[in-house]
Amino acid sequence: MQTESTQVAIIGGGPSGLLLSQLLHKAGIDTIVLERQTRDYVLGRIRAGVLETGFVELLRKSGAGARMDREGEIHHGFHIAHQGRLDRIDLARHAQGQTVMVYGQTEVTRDLYEARDAMGGRVLHEVQDVVLHDLKGAQPHVTFIHDGAERRINASFIVGADGFHGVSRKSIPADILREYEKVYPFGWLGILSETAPAAPELIYARHDRGFALCSMRNSRLSRYYIQVPLSDKAEDWSDDAFWQELKRRLPEAVAEQMETGPSIEKSIAPLRSFVAEPMRYGALFLAGDAAHIVPPTGAKGLNLAASDIHYLYEGFADYFLRGEAGGLDSYSAKALARVWKAERFSWWMTSLLHRFPDMSPADLRLQQADLDYLFSSEAAQTSLAENYVGLPY
Amino acid sequence: MQTESTQVAIIGGGPSGLLLSQLLHKAGIDTIVLERQTRDYVLGRIRAGVLETGFVELLRKSGAGARMDREGEIHHGFHIAHQGRLDRIDLARHAQGQTVMVYGQTEVTRDLYEARDAMGGRVLHEVQDVVLHDLKGAQPHVTFIHDGAERRINASFIVGADGFHGVSRKSIPADILREYEKVYPFGWLGILSETAPAAPELIYARHDRGFALCSMRNSRLSRYYIQVPLSDKAEDWSDDAFWQELKRRLPEAVAEQMETGPSIEKSIAPLRSFVAEPMRYGALFLAGDAAHIVPPTGAKGLNLAASDIHYLYEGFADYFLRGEAGGLDSYSAKALARVWKAERFSWWMTSLLHRFPDMSPADLRLQQADLDYLFSSEAAQTSLAENYVGLPY
Repeated sequence: MQTESTQVAIIGGGPSGLLLSQLLHKAGIDTIVLERQTRDYVLGRIRAGVLETGFVELLRKSGAGARMDREGEIHHGFHIAHQGRLDRIDLARHAQGQTVMVYGQTEVTRDLYEARDAMGGRVLHEVQDVVLHDLKGAQPHVTFIHDGAERRINASFIVGADGFHGVSRKSIPADILREYEKVYPFGWLGILSETAPAAPELIYARHDRGFALCSMRNSRLSRYYIQVPLSDKAEDWSDDAFWQELKRRLPEAVAEQMETGPSIEKSIAPLRSFVAEPMRYGALFLAGDAAHIVPPTGAKGLNLAASDIHYLYEGFADYFLRGEAGGLDSYSAKALARVWKAERFSWWMTSLLHRFPDMSPADLRLQQADLDYLFSSEAAQTSLAENYVGLPY
Repeated sequence: MQTESTQVAIIGGGPSGLLLSQLLHKAGIDTIVLERQTRDYVLGRIRAGVLETGFVELLRKSGAGARMDREGEIHHGFHIAHQGRLDRIDLARHAQGQTVMVYGQTEVTRDLYEARDAMGGRVLHEVQDVVLHDLKGAQPHVTFIHDGAERRINASFIVGADGFHGVSRKSIPADILREYEKVYPFGWLGILSETAPAAPELIYARHDRGFALCSMRNSRLSRYYIQVPLSDKAEDWSDDAFWQELKRRLPEAVAEQMETGPSIEKSIAPLRSFVAEPMRYGALFLAGDAAHIVPPTGAKGLNLAASDIHYLYEGFADYFLRGEAGGLDSYSAKALARVWKAERFSWWMTSLLHRFPDMSPADLRLQQADLDYLFSSEAAQTSLAENYVGLPY
């Protein structure tokens, strides 16, 4: 079996794994990234598009932020539509000048691949049968099949950045791993369309018919979502039916001016809150979706992966460059403290804006009161804003 | 039938009705208060004890605030116990110097009765068979039995301050009245005991075994509560069992030093969120518990009645002294806007601190994350504080 060694083996070639690989490489720490899919497949996934300042700074630090800074859009606020009104959260004002960057996850991933290529980073695609070994022992290693051959990588540490369904989390013994999960009784039907966004800033809509979101990737690429029952299927929603339902849930002034067009992607995603604890098991460190999932309301998914990567980067740098293990030892506790706060925020924002099937008339009025209070209170808007731009690392 | 006339007939001789009667009398507006119970019965009810600044100012304005100012205790903050920690909410710091006054509702009511007596206010006790008539017509009036005789009071307006079970709300036709209700799957077992309070400030405790609250009326009168299943009966809880369970839910340092003693009152109260809309129907204006109930977490019940009374007082003064009906016309909308925000806050604080029977492990961790976020965020503490001291009228 072909065997090689690295300091950090990274399972998963999505944005988290690539970002960590890139940051560590720049710090002189050797990594190998293993990805189950092809590069094209990874780049074909449509995901998040709102980046916190922390993420933006990390991408810049990794050397892959140039195109984001050219093409990304800085947003100073967003809107919430409710009761026919369109209220605005002024992020810059309520979060001490902080903003968010609208730049698609697909673009981030593309930029990171190019940066990895430019530095000669090792990223193996289409690896199969990945198995993690000896995580608590003296010789942590990964075995897998690549190009038809069995291979082995010895590593001081292994990072599991292979998503919710990946092998990494499952490699932690069941009697050690605690999993917390909350499933929401609805999904998001999303489309991507080559149209001008409905508004310059995002619009989150609470409506009797259900939640809707107007988002965008750039000035000619819009991303829209509507809350649908989990029993719905994307193929049963024609583009016309989607636009019609979306418009019903938006203030008239927005709906009337909205540019519509054919969808170039259409899919339904379930909503889930999920956390696995601990995020470290011996030589294995979980990061991103491998350890936690948030419902997408509030755009915390990718950003939460970025804070994991930040803590891991600092921890590995301390370990390999300064011989200090403290950062790695405190990783799980530090990452989880921020994870749970983001889980709380995503759950709260989901609860604030969605129509749950079991809501009573009193629940609906309390939900409306929550929004009315929000827009009457500087403190409540500050709380929302500080979470939306991202709590400090 | 003995008939007399007044400008405002007030149904209900609790603190709301008495406060309004007192305020209007001082402004030269005539009232008669009708109360179903005896004065001793009304004064025997153990109720709330935390007064917002708005209430305090209203009581002073009514001329009945002198004893409160002598004997009441100003509280600059309160504590939340969770995860073995005791964190403090600094009201004065987070709510622009505002505080709350600890002074029992029973004392407020006693002071108001004395003020009414001193001014010769008319308060009829033990009235029976109260019926409201012609609320939308030219001759609004109330009929009832008093001292065995049928009586009638003609009034320009009628205020229903007769509580959740009173006749006033039920006098609004069913096709006009909308009721919103949320019942919580637990109750509060409360005791009053002549002991020194466990701490100088209130302690709200979130615990795996359920919520607990250490409150007080004065330096030798303590009020304690524990969350219990609705199926429990107060008589099945011995004093010993109560103290033992209370101590289990409090931080050790608090429990160890707590003075215990015989209870002088012990009862179980259900928790309910309830709002009736509209709060005006013709000549009838609802106030306080007649129109809305909050769960007691956050101490909003009596304080919310006070803001109704404030709006009504302003409205009647405008009407009778200046001939302007605008204040009365906007009463329902204005009062309800504040009511729903207080309902939201009380529901939120209840949800934050209680153990709901259907909570999953993920729900429990999200609840803990809510508290962890609260004590990590100036904005979140400000939001709690501004609600606790009372949103502006």
